[in-house]
Amino acid sequence: MKKAIILASGGMDSLVTTAIAKNENDDIYLLHTNYGQRTEDKELMAFRSICSHYSPKDILIVNIDYLAQIGGNSLTDKSIDVPKNKLGEEDVPNTYVPFRNGNLIAIATSWAEVIGAQSIYIGAVEVDGSGYPDCRKIFYDQLEKAINYGTKEDTKISIKTPLIHKNKSEIIKLGKTLNVPFELSWSCYNNNDIACGECDSCILRLRAFDEAGIIDPIKYIKKMRRLSND
Amino acid sequence: MKKAIILASGGMDSLVTTAIAKNENDDIYLLHTNYGQRTEDKELMAFRSICSHYSPKDILIVNIDYLAQIGGNSLTDKSIDVPKNKLGEEDVPNTYVPFRNGNLIAIATSWAEVIGAQSIYIGAVEVDGSGYPDCRKIFYDQLEKAINYGTKEDTKISIKTPLIHKNKSEIIKLGKTLNVPFELSWSCYNNNDIACGECDSCILRLRAFDEAGIIDPIKYIKKMRRLSND
Repeated sequence: MKKAIILASGGMDSLVTTAIAKNENDDIYLLHTNYGQRTEDKELMAFRSICSHYSPKDILIVNIDYLAQIGGNSLTDKSIDVPKNKLGEEDVPNTYVPFRNGNLIAIATSWAEVIGAQSIYIGAVEVDGSGYPDCRKIFYDQLEKAINYGTKEDTKISIKTPLIHKNKSEIIKLGKTLNVPFELSWSCYNNNDIACGECDSCILRLRAFDEAGIIDPIKYIKKMRRLSND
Repeated sequence: MKKAIILASGGMDSLVTTAIAKNENDDIYLLHTNYGQRTEDKELMAFRSICSHYSPKDILIVNIDYLAQIGGNSLTDKSIDVPKNKLGEEDVPNTYVPFRNGNLIAIATSWAEVIGAQSIYIGAVEVDGSGYPDCRKIFYDQLEKAINYGTKEDTKISIKTPLIHKNKSEIIKLGKTLNVPFELSWSCYNNNDIACGECDSCILRLRAFDEAGIIDPIKYIKKMRRLSND
């Protein structure tokens, strides 16, 4: 019986990762975290829609607002502006939530040990210039080793990063072949009803759909303005 | 400027670890977690007393009740009995909270990266038969490597486990030389006003003080009963 936990933010990468894990396992378990990020409610709504689509065996929604207590990033601290059009200008952008993915994997490991899951899937992407240090393959390889020393003898956990070396347009193309419902995902860093189309995350997404030659099914404020100006 | 974060539960080991870290650093930062454990309020009270004694530069108290949501152990799940006099009978006792220390180090890493701390101290003890896999030196060595891959280039974090190879009586003797206020610490697994004297944790503590030839300054129900029967 192959059981897997998937870290599901409600974004596009974790959505495609969920589709992959669904194909590779008997039962999937979806883990979502609220950490006081700007778009907490949007992401949770996207997560719930994705759950309805993929019917996981179980879900776990956890609050880790300590990441907002700790701060130091623009996603949880509203006094720091989310950068616009700064892609590639900084080594590590201020949207980097310090060691967030390390925390997420730790939570998933606790859950995996209790339910007997063999795999933890995370939709981390190393390429495409996010610059986040906790999105590197070498980090997950090393963390997997640590986890297997820090859990029971009969617990064997593998960290799966199926998208780590793919760029965004490759992820979209792969998602398309897996019939991923992209319309359910939320990527924007800003908490609007409609994605802004201007933050780093929207720009990466829009550029990627464009490169993949596929139309992004979600709406954008910027695109809408452009259309209304036509 | 040497800054260190100490994981401070309110127990004896983290108390001695705090004393060591205080000597080795310019500023100490104490991190305490509530995770729905039976003795949450007792531990928090002990933590606050320890903070008053050691005057950390800053403290962080975080709620990670997801460990109770995940369950699978007798410390957070009140339907599972805390074992009495079962020491050494099981490979991993049911008081093991799956990968708890991995989660704690992850939180400390996020905080360390934001405040620029170079060290994270944890009072984990490998010997003395707790049997917890997340108390092994090899785990912390591997996790330290992972952390340094998963954080920014200029973040360098060392995980310090000064007690890892000491037995409890050695820890008590060391604490004594550091003038540790043992009367402020809480070790019992049960949520009584006074320590039970019968759970694994009390037994380890009592046995260790006895071996060290030092009188434990806290009171015990069992000891009190014995005295009243004399």
